[in-house]
Amino acid sequence: MLGKVALEEAFALPRFEEKTRWWAGMFSTDPETHAKEITDINQIRIDYAQKHGVGYQILSYTAPGVQDIWDAAEAQALAVEINDYIAERVRAMPDRLGAFATLSMHNPKEAADELRRCVEKYGFKGALVNDTQRAGPDGDDMIFYDNADWDIFWQTCTDLDVPLYLHPRNPTGTIYEKLWADRKWLIGPPLSFAQGVSLHVLGMVTNGVFDRHPKLQIIMGHLGEHIPFDMWRINHWFEDRKKQIGLAATCKKTIREYFAENIWITTSGHFSTTTLNFCMAEISSDRILFSIDYPFETFSDACDWFDKTELNNTDRLKIGRENAKKLFKLGDYHDSSA
Amino acid sequence: MLGKVALEEAFALPRFEEKTRWWAGMFSTDPETHAKEITDINQIRIDYAQKHGVGYQILSYTAPGVQDIWDAAEAQALAVEINDYIAERVRAMPDRLGAFATLSMHNPKEAADELRRCVEKYGFKGALVNDTQRAGPDGDDMIFYDNADWDIFWQTCTDLDVPLYLHPRNPTGTIYEKLWADRKWLIGPPLSFAQGVSLHVLGMVTNGVFDRHPKLQIIMGHLGEHIPFDMWRINHWFEDRKKQIGLAATCKKTIREYFAENIWITTSGHFSTTTLNFCMAEISSDRILFSIDYPFETFSDACDWFDKTELNNTDRLKIGRENAKKLFKLGDYHDSSA
Amino acid sequence: MLGKVALEEAFALPRFEEKTRWWAGMFSTDPETHAKEITDINQIRIDYAQKHGVGYQILSYTAPGVQDIWDAAEAQALAVEINDYIAERVRAMPDRLGAFATLSMHNPKEAADELRRCVEKYGFKGALVNDTQRAGPDGDDMIFYDNADWDIFWQTCTDLDVPLYLHPRNPTGTIYEKLWADRKWLIGPPLSFAQGVSLHVLGMVTNGVFDRHPKLQIIMGHLGEHIPFDMWRINHWFEDRKKQIGLAATCKKTIREYFAENIWITTSGHFSTTTLNFCMAEISSDRILFSIDYPFETFSDACDWFDKTELNNTDRLKIGRENAKKLFKLGDYHDSSA
Amino acid sequence: MLGKVALEEAFALPRFEEKTRWWAGMFSTDPETHAKEITDINQIRIDYAQKHGVGYQILSYTAPGVQDIWDAAEAQALAVEINDYIAERVRAMPDRLGAFATLSMHNPKEAADELRRCVEKYGFKGALVNDTQRAGPDGDDMIFYDNADWDIFWQTCTDLDVPLYLHPRNPTGTIYEKLWADRKWLIGPPLSFAQGVSLHVLGMVTNGVFDRHPKLQIIMGHLGEHIPFDMWRINHWFEDRKKQIGLAATCKKTIREYFAENIWITTSGHFSTTTLNFCMAEISSDRILFSIDYPFETFSDACDWFDKTELNNTDRLKIGRENAKKLFKLGDYHDSSA
Repeated sequence: MLGKVALEEAFALPRFEEKTRWWAGMFSTDPETHAKEITDINQIRIDYAQKHGVGYQILSYTAPGVQDIWDAAEAQALAVEINDYIAERVRAMPDRLGAFATLSMHNPKEAADELRRCVEKYGFKGALVNDTQRAGPDGDDMIFYDNADWDIFWQTCTDLDVPLYLHPRNPTGTIYEKLWADRKWLIGPPLSFAQGVSLHVLGMVTNGVFDRHPKLQIIMGHLGEHIPFDMWRINHWFEDRKKQIGLAATCKKTIREYFAENIWITTSGHFSTTTLNFCMAEISSDRILFSIDYPFETFSDACDWFDKTELNNTDRLKIGRENAKKLFKLGDYHDSSA
Repeated sequence: MLGKVALEEAFALPRFEEKTRWWAGMFSTDPETHAKEITDINQIRIDYAQKHGVGYQILSYTAPGVQDIWDAAEAQALAVEINDYIAERVRAMPDRLGAFATLSMHNPKEAADELRRCVEKYGFKGALVNDTQRAGPDGDDMIFYDNADWDIFWQTCTDLDVPLYLHPRNPTGTIYEKLWADRKWLIGPPLSFAQGVSLHVLGMVTNGVFDRHPKLQIIMGHLGEHIPFDMWRINHWFEDRKKQIGLAATCKKTIREYFAENIWITTSGHFSTTTLNFCMAEISSDRILFSIDYPFETFSDACDWFDKTELNNTDRLKIGRENAKKLFKLGDYHDSSA
Repeated sequence: MLGKVALEEAFALPRFEEKTRWWAGMFSTDPETHAKEITDINQIRIDYAQKHGVGYQILSYTAPGVQDIWDAAEAQALAVEINDYIAERVRAMPDRLGAFATLSMHNPKEAADELRRCVEKYGFKGALVNDTQRAGPDGDDMIFYDNADWDIFWQTCTDLDVPLYLHPRNPTGTIYEKLWADRKWLIGPPLSFAQGVSLHVLGMVTNGVFDRHPKLQIIMGHLGEHIPFDMWRINHWFEDRKKQIGLAATCKKTIREYFAENIWITTSGHFSTTTLNFCMAEISSDRILFSIDYPFETFSDACDWFDKTELNNTDRLKIGRENAKKLFKLGDYHDSSA
Repeated sequence: MLGKVALEEAFALPRFEEKTRWWAGMFSTDPETHAKEITDINQIRIDYAQKHGVGYQILSYTAPGVQDIWDAAEAQALAVEINDYIAERVRAMPDRLGAFATLSMHNPKEAADELRRCVEKYGFKGALVNDTQRAGPDGDDMIFYDNADWDIFWQTCTDLDVPLYLHPRNPTGTIYEKLWADRKWLIGPPLSFAQGVSLHVLGMVTNGVFDRHPKLQIIMGHLGEHIPFDMWRINHWFEDRKKQIGLAATCKKTIREYFAENIWITTSGHFSTTTLNFCMAEISSDRILFSIDYPFETFSDACDWFDKTELNNTDRLKIGRENAKKLFKLGDYHDSSA
C-alpha cells in the first residue's frame, strides 16, 4: 500500500561516521553500506520510501545514542546538537519526514524542557529514548524513568500531547557481565532488547506512571517486546494475586486497560504474520503501527511483507497508516490518502 | 478429559514448613493453605487430581530450592535428602505419581551422578532444575549450564534418555539490585521468570549445547517463557545476520529446528487459549505438554480451562497426555486411556 | 461488559402462538418456553438483558416469517401488521429496544416504500429480511434480491442510510427435496442457513449490487455464514481468473474491499473465540457486531462467552457495542457508556 | 521442502482433448495450456514436481468425470477405461506417481468391485469421487452416498483400508436452475464446490455412515470445504439440541470426534496461512495434507506458499508429507526423507 508511515527509523550524525562503521561491524554483514544508510537523511531513505510505498518517516537518533553517555552535561549537549541537526533536515521535506526528539535522560526537568523545545520550536512528533540512561562515575548505573522523580517529564509529554517511543539499547555494566557476556549472540534483537524494554514499560505500569498520567502514550517496537505473549499470565497474577497483596496501591487498572489506553506497539523488525495476528487478538489492531527499523532492517523486508501478507483491508490501512495519522495528528503527506 | 499428565508440580520438605509459610506470604493470598498443599504429597493433591481428571503427576522440589544454596556441600546434601524423601512417597502410588530429580548444580559431574542414581535406583522421570545455581562466597554469583563444562551432565541426560525441566527462580545478587528491587511486582510470573529461563535456554542454543547433544530434551514451562513470540525475529537475526558473522560456529541448526527436536513447552501457569493456539502454530502441538504449576496455580484453574477450552480432540489428547506418555515412556497409570 | 447491543433478536406475533409452538417442536428441546420467550417483547427479554449486560436490542420478526408467504398481498399485509405491532412496543422502551422493519419482498418498490415508512415514521434501524422470498403459485419459487430489479430497493436503503440484515430461512421447494429432505439434521444452523445466505450475499457481490450502491450496508449473522473461511480462495479465483474472463464487468472491487466497505458480520449463534479471532484477522474487528440470536440461543450462552472470553479491551468494546453505536447512530441507551 | 506428497491432482483422457479444451474455456485464462497439462501424465507434471519439491503425486480423473454420466453402463465402462489407462502410466514411475480409482457411483456393489479391482490389481491408493452421481433419464437426479444402500461400498473401503477423496463437481439439474444459473461466477471454487461437498460429508455424519464404518477415512479438499469454520456451531447444535430430538439415533459421536477419527482435509486450492492456522486449531495438523489441485492451480502457487509460509518445522513436515506417508502407507519415493 502507498502512504505507509514508519516510525522506528534511525539516523546517525556524520561526524561519528567512523564510530558508526565500527559499531556496525558487530551486527551487520555490510558495515560500509550500513554506515552510509544511517548517516544519510534526505536521499537514500527517500528513494527507498518512494520505491516501497512509505509516505512518511519519523526519524530518531540511533541507539544507544545519548543514553550511552554517562556524563550528564555531555549527554545534554549531544542531544541538543542532534535535535538541531535533524530539525533542519526534516524541515526540507515536510511531506516526507518528521522527527522524534533525542533526549538526555539524566535529569527529568532538563529532558522535559528539551522535549518542549523540540515540539514547540521544531514541530517534532514526540521523543524516542533508548531504554535506561547510562549514569554513574563509570557508566555502570542505569537510570529508569518509572519512578515518581520522572513525573515532571511524563507530565510534559501529556501537556504537549506527544508520545514517547521506548527503544532498546544494549546491556552495559554489571548486567552485561552477569548475563550477557557469555551469550553474546543474544544481545540485541534476539533477546536482550525485549528484556530491557519490557522490564521498563512494565515497571512504569506497576509503579503507577500511567495512573498518575492517564493520557500518557508510550510506543514499543518489535510487536511489543514479548509482553503480548504473556498478557493473560500477567493479568492473572496482577488481578488474582498481586493486587490483593499490595500492587493495587500503585496500579489501579488492569494490564489490558493500560495496553488499550496508553501503549502502542509497532511491527519494527518483526515481520511475522502469525505474531501480528496474535497481537491483533491480544492488543487490537487499533494499537498497532507499521514500522521498519531501518537501516537495521531493510525497506524491502518490511514493506514486501506488510503489503503482501494476508490481512484484511481495514486493518492493513489502520496499521499501515491510519493509526499513525491519528496518533501524530499528521496532515497531508506524500500519498497520505492513496 | 481423564488421565491428564501434569509435570510442573511442586512439593516442599515438611521440616521447612515455617520457611515455606513465610515464603508463601510474598505471593500467596492464603499462605497457610499454600504451605499445607505444597508439603502434602499423597493426599490433598491426589484428591484434586481425582476431581479434575489428572491421572499422573511428576513432582519436583519447589523453587528456588537447592539452586538457592551457594554452599556446594550443603546443596548436594539437600538434593540427596529430597530425592530419597520423594522416592519413597511416589513409590507408594506408582500409578499416580512420578518424580523429577532435584540436583545441586555446583558441579557437573556430581549433578550427573545424582541424576543417574535417581533414574536408575528410583525410576525418576528426569530432573527439574531451577534456572541458574546460586554460588560464590556471598551467593552473588550465578552458574549457567550453557557452556562446555556441563557437557558431561548433558551427556548423562541423553545416556539415560531423560529430559530436564528448566524451571525459573527469583533473581538474586546484583541482578536483583540493578533490575528488580525497584519493580518488585514484576518478580516471578509477571516477568522475571520468563526472562531468566529464556536467556538460559537460548544460551544453550547459541553456545552449542544442542549441537553437541542432539538428543537432549529440555522442557520449559509457561508456554515457552516468551520465546515462541519471537520465533520469527530470532530466526531472522540468527539466519540472516548472526550466522554470517560467527554464530554458525556453535549453532548449526535453525531455532525452529531446535524447538522441533530438543525443546518442549508446558501450559503451566498460562491458561490462555489465544496463546496456546499461537504456540501450536509456532511450535507445534507435538511439543506442548499440559501442566498446572500446583500449588502456585490451582487444579481447577488449569483443568477447567484445558478441559473446556475450544480445542480439537486430537490436540487435546496429545497435549493433555499422549505427548507426555511418549516423552516419559509412561506405562499404564490411572485413567491413562480413558 | 455492560451496554452490549444485540441485533439478531427474534419476536413472533401473539396471534400465531400455536403455530409458533408447533414450529419450535422441530428444533427446541422445550417448545413451550421457546414460544413464550419469542412472543414476549417487553418483559422476559428485558430481564435477561438486565442480568447479562445487554443495553439495547434491535428486534426483528422471526424466520421464515413473511418470506414464507408466497401470496404477495398476504405477505405485504402481514409485514405492515408486524411493523405497526412492534413499533408500539419498542416506543415504550426507547432506551432498551429498537426494531428492524419486516418486509414483503415480492415487489422492490413496495418493499422500499414500507422500509421508508418504518424508518421515517417509526425510527426503525433498518430491515431484516429472511434470505429469499418464497413465491410462485405453489410457493416453489425463490426471489433473490441480487439482480437489477432490486436497485430501487437498495437505493432506498442507502438514501435512508440504514443497513439490511440478511437472515437465513429454511429451504423450501425443489431445493428442499433435492438436497435437504434426506439429511434433515443439517437444516438450519448446522448447514443450510449458511449455504443460503452466503449464496445470496456473494450473488449481490458478483451481480454488481455493491458497485451500483457503494454505500449499501449488509449484515450477516453467525460470523459471516462461512464466507470469511474462504476469503483467500474467493479472492484468488475472482482476481486471478474470473475477472479476466468476464466478472470484472459487474464486480469491480476485490472481495476484501466489499467486506471492508459494505458488509458486517455478527456473533449470533457462533460463540467461538477461535472462529472470532480468525474473523478478526480476515474481516477486521471494525466490522464485527455482537449478537445473540435469542431465543434460539440463550442470553447466558452468548453473554457469558463474550464477557469472559479472552479478548483485548479495545475489540471487546468495539464488537460489544461501539461498532453498533456508529452503524445505527444510537444515542444514549441503557448503560451505553458504562 | 522436498518430498512433498500431493493428492488432488487431475488428469484427463487424451481422446477427450477437444472437450477438455472447451471445458477449460469456462474457467481458464489459457485453455490451450490447461488442456495440455491435464492430458499429460509422465512429463510436464513430473518436471514441475522436480522443480517444486513434490516427491509423489496421487492422480485422479478430473471432475465432473464419470459422475457426470447419467447412463450407468456408460459410466461404468468409462471408469474401467480410465483406471486401466492410468494404471499403466503410474506403473512406469512408481517412485513418483500413484493413482486414485475412478468409480461409477450408480451402483454400490459395482463401485465396490471396481475399487477392489483397482486396489488389488493395480495398487491404487484409494478412490476419488466427484460429489454426487448424476442419474435419472435426463441426468436431473443426484445420487448421494450417505444412506444405508452404500454400506457395502463403505465396507469395502475399510476392508481394503483405503481412503476415499470426496471431490466437488458443478451443480446440474434443477439445483443449477434454482440457485446457480443467475450467479454463475459463484460456480466452482468460489462457492458451489464447498456447498456440495460439505452437504455430502455432513450427510454421511448425520446419517450414520461413520458410526456403521468407524474406520472409514474420507478426504476433503480446500481445507475442509467450509466445515472447520462452523465446527463450534455444528457441535453446539448437534450436542445441545439435535441429539436430544432424535439425531443421536444415527450419530453417536461428536462432530469433533468424526473429524479426529474419520476425516482429512487438504490444502488444495486454498493457500492461505491464516486459514491453515485456523484449521490447525480446529482440526489438528495431524489431519491436514498438502495438495495442489493441479492443473487448476499451479505448482508454484501451492509450493512457494507452503515452503515459505510461516510454519513450525514439525507441522510443515507432517502436512507436507509425513501424514500422507502414514495414511497411504507409502514406502520410499523420490526424496521421501530428504
